[in-house]
Amino acid sequence: MGLSVFGDAHYMKEALKEAEKAMEEGEVPVGAVVVCKNKIISRAHNQTERLTDPTAHAEMLAITAAFNNLGGKYLEDCTVYVTLEPCTMCAGAMFWARPGKIIYAARDEKRGYEKWGAGVLHPKTKVEYGIMESESSALLNAFFSALRDKRIH
Amino acid sequence: MGLSVFGDAHYMKEALKEAEKAMEEGEVPVGAVVVCKNKIISRAHNQTERLTDPTAHAEMLAITAAFNNLGGKYLEDCTVYVTLEPCTMCAGAMFWARPGKIIYAARDEKRGYEKWGAGVLHPKTKVEYGIMESESSALLNAFFSALRDKRIH
Repeated sequence: MGLSVFGDAHYMKEALKEAEKAMEEGEVPVGAVVVCKNKIISRAHNQTERLTDPTAHAEMLAITAAFNNLGGKYLEDCTVYVTLEPCTMCAGAMFWARPGKIIYAARDEKRGYEKWGAGVLHPKTKVEYGIMESESSALLNAFFSALRDKRIH
Repeated sequence: MGLSVFGDAHYMKEALKEAEKAMEEGEVPVGAVVVCKNKIISRAHNQTERLTDPTAHAEMLAITAAFNNLGGKYLEDCTVYVTLEPCTMCAGAMFWARPGKIIYAARDEKRGYEKWGAGVLHPKTKVEYGIMESESSALLNAFFSALRDKRIH
């Protein structure tokens, strides 16, 4: 059938696979993949516990890995898929990395960057959200409810 | 003369030494040190060019190194000294790292976090600025004016 070019749902599923890995490792289940010209050039999940480093968010690791892979100054030909709205740190990192597009699944009303306004990101970066939101939220809710149960018992 | 406990100027000088190293390496001259109980537990300078990673700011590297050194979840007993007002990414990282205090030298009106309001940082983190501001600004001005000259000629 000729060339198969994957769509956003495919890449977000890959980001969700990363989030599931985080879950299995006892990390907050957030995952990210960076896609450049229909190719995943980096993938990562939250590793704050494992690395004992609260800055080791999925996006930070995926962005750094993308630059290791690509070189260059910007990720302008890339899309970052992430299962949760980036926090201020990760959005600030994306300001510098300047991806062409960011697509995130679930909103994060508490720590998401959007409450600071769109100016946190570079004006050249487009943003979409909502794709596979329920899958991502279900994973996060399961994680935090298990954590609460653990604390109570 | 008994115990000598260094003051803020001493640690900011150490951060400036890091900024000078960055300058020598052709990096934007920003430096940071993390001090915990009168001891420098990490030090770093901007390495965005060398690492080809626009997220490799002095503060990010110093915070990650501080956690590598200390372990734990927060830097609550530490002060981060940095020669320039942190950007949104670095301030967002400090939200998670939660140092007791941040002291920065020069303001960064363009990319500094303060234009987004104090809420970017954790409410438990105190902030001071202005110490050795002129030394830090002189270094940054020298860097950017050399860069402009290079571009013109």
